Amino acid sequence: MNRAKNRRLLLVRRPDGMIRAEDFRLVDESIPPLAEGQFLVRNHFASIDPAMRGWLDDKPSYLPPVALGAVMRAGTVGQIIESRAAGFSAGDWIKGIHGIEEWSLGVEGDGSRLVDPAKVHSMSEYISVVGGAALTAWVAVNRILVPQPGETLLVSSAAGGVGAVAVQLAARAGATVIGIAGGPEKCRRLTEELGCVSAIDHRGKQFRDFRHAIAAAAPDGLDMVLENVGGDGLDGALANLRQHARVALCGLLSEYNAPPVGARNLRELIYRSVTMRGFTLLDFPDAIAPATEELLACARNGSMQFAVEIIEGIDNAYGAMEQLFIKGSDGKLVLKIY
Amino acid sequence: MNRAKNRRLLLVRRPDGMIRAEDFRLVDESIPPLAEGQFLVRNHFASIDPAMRGWLDDKPSYLPPVALGAVMRAGTVGQIIESRAAGFSAGDWIKGIHGIEEWSLGVEGDGSRLVDPAKVHSMSEYISVVGGAALTAWVAVNRILVPQPGETLLVSSAAGGVGAVAVQLAARAGATVIGIAGGPEKCRRLTEELGCVSAIDHRGKQFRDFRHAIAAAAPDGLDMVLENVGGDGLDGALANLRQHARVALCGLLSEYNAPPVGARNLRELIYRSVTMRGFTLLDFPDAIAPATEELLACARNGSMQFAVEIIEGIDNAYGAMEQLFIKGSDGKLVLKIY
Repeated sequence: MNRAKNRRLLLVRRPDGMIRAEDFRLVDESIPPLAEGQFLVRNHFASIDPAMRGWLDDKPSYLPPVALGAVMRAGTVGQIIESRAAGFSAGDWIKGIHGIEEWSLGVEGDGSRLVDPAKVHSMSEYISVVGGAALTAWVAVNRILVPQPGETLLVSSAAGGVGAVAVQLAARAGATVIGIAGGPEKCRRLTEELGCVSAIDHRGKQFRDFRHAIAAAAPDGLDMVLENVGGDGLDGALANLRQHARVALCGLLSEYNAPPVGARNLRELIYRSVTMRGFTLLDFPDAIAPATEELLACARNGSMQFAVEIIEGIDNAYGAMEQLFIKGSDGKLVLKIY
Repeated sequence: MNRAKNRRLLLVRRPDGMIRAEDFRLVDESIPPLAEGQFLVRNHFASIDPAMRGWLDDKPSYLPPVALGAVMRAGTVGQIIESRAAGFSAGDWIKGIHGIEEWSLGVEGDGSRLVDPAKVHSMSEYISVVGGAALTAWVAVNRILVPQPGETLLVSSAAGGVGAVAVQLAARAGATVIGIAGGPEKCRRLTEELGCVSAIDHRGKQFRDFRHAIAAAAPDGLDMVLENVGGDGLDGALANLRQHARVALCGLLSEYNAPPVGARNLRELIYRSVTMRGFTLLDFPDAIAPATEELLACARNGSMQFAVEIIEGIDNAYGAMEQLFIKGSDGKLVLKIY
C-alpha cells in the first residue's frame, strides 16, 4: 500500500450560502506515524449528507465546525490497517465519523464502532441501510413520533436519505403516511414502493401551496410531522395539525444554504397543544443496536427498500456534495473512496 | 335590577393588524328570558388578556373566532341572579368565559365554575390571582417546564400577566430566573420584588439585541424558556439554549397585531435536542384545583405579588384593550363592569 500519499478534501473557505467548488481543495498529504491509542483506517465509503452543510458554518452546533484547512468531515466505513488502540485490530471494519480522505487516523473514544462484514452484501450498506440517515429515521419514528395505527404522518423530503426510511418504518407501524417530494418519479416511488398513501409533488403543475396541498392530502389533519426541510413546507404542515400533534424536527434543508425564511405559524403549536422536538442521532446512542438489527434484517428479507446512489472516486467528492445540495439525488448518496 | 338593558361590547369588524376602536361597538340590548339549562349572571369583572387578539381573527384556534356582531369574549367573574341550570343557584359566584357585557346567559357545561367569596378579599382576585393568566403561568412552570434548583429560566414579557406569576413560581422552585421587560420600572420590579436574578430591558439604552443581551445574562446558557412574545426575542433565546433545553410556548404577543417575522433559529432545536411545547390552559383542566389552591394561599400569606390594574366601567372596555396591546400595563388588567 502507498502510505506516503493520502488524498484528502480540505475545507479552505467557509461558504456563504450555497457551497462552491472554491470552498474545498483536494490535496495529497503524507500520513503521520501512529501515536499510542490511534489506529489507521483505509476509508472505503463516505456518506454524503445534508448535515454536512451545517458543519461548514462557524457557529456552535451539535458538532464543532469543520476547521478551515481541515479535512471535510463525513460518516465513513473503512478497514483498519494498523492499530495501537485497544479494541481495534488490523483487519477490523469500522464505521465512524472521520473525513473525506483515503486514510484516516482514528483514536480510542472517537465514536468508531466495529461492524461485521458477514451481515451485509456490501460494506456500503453500513452507510445506506444503517448509516446516519437511516438510523436517524429509525429514531424519529421509534423514539420520537411512535406512530399508532391509523395516525397520519407527513414526511418532508420523503424520498431523501432520512425520509425514505422513515416513511417505510411508519407505514409498517400502521400509520397513514403522506410524503412530500419534488418530481413525479420520486412521488411515484413514495406511493408505489415505499408505502405512502399519497405524495405531494411540490414541483408539480397542480401544486399551489403547501398549506392547501397538505389539507387536500390530509383533510382530517396531521397527527405527526417528520420535518426535514423547514420554510414554507413546515408552515404548511403547522397549519394542518391536529390537537396534540407531535413534530419531529430532524433537519432544515431549506436553511442550510440560504438565510431561513422563518417559521411563521408557531402559533399553531399553542392552539393545538403541539410538541416540537428537535433531535440528532447523537442523542440516542442506545438506539443504534436495535435500529441496526431491525434495518439490516429488513434489507436482508427485502421488506424495505434502501435506494442508494454510489459516486465513484474521491476526486468526485465535491461533485457528490453538489449533487446533494443542488441537483438532488434519488437515493442515499455514497462516495466510494476505495 | 334593570334587566331591560344589557350594555355589551360587540365585535363589528375584524381588525387587520392592530385593533381599532371602529372594530367594536357598545350597544344596549335586552336580555331574553332564561331557557331550561341556562343561568343569568351579573358580570362584575372581565379579564383583559393578550389571547383576546387571537379570538378576533377568522382562523381556527383553540376556541372558535368571536363571530361578527357577537359580544366580545372574555374571562369573567360574576354572580348568578337567576338559574334554570343544575348546579348553579341564584347568589352563587362563578368564573367562566363569557363576554364583555353587563349580563351574560350561561349554560350548563359552558365551563363556568363556582368560586368562593370567602377565599378572597375581592372577587377581582379570581381574575388577578387565579385568572387565566396566573393559572397558565402555574401550568407552564409546574406541568411543562418543572424547573429544578439551579436551572436557568428565561421569561419573556416577564412583568406581564403570565410572566410575573411564572417568574415568582420558578424562583420559589429554586430556578435562576431572568426576565425580559420593557422599561426600567418593570425591570426593577422583576429583580427587586419578583425574584429575578437579572432583567433585560429591551427598551434600554444599552440594549443591542436579544442574542447578546441573553448571552450576557446567562453566560452558561438557558435550561428553560417561557415564551410569551416570539419574534426577535424568541430567536435570541433559541440562540442561547443548553443541551436538552425545554421551551414552553405560551404566547406570541409580537404576532397578534402584526404579521409574524418568523422564528429563524429553529435549527438550534435540532443542535441542542430541544423540546418546544405549545399549550393553553384549556389543556390542563386537572391543574385548575391545585393551582388555585396554591396561588390563593400565596396571595393570602403575601409570599407572592399579584399586581393588578383595574379599569372602571364597561364604557372603557375598548380603552382597556388598547392599553393592553398599545400602551402596556404594569399588572394584570381587569375591567370592572359592576
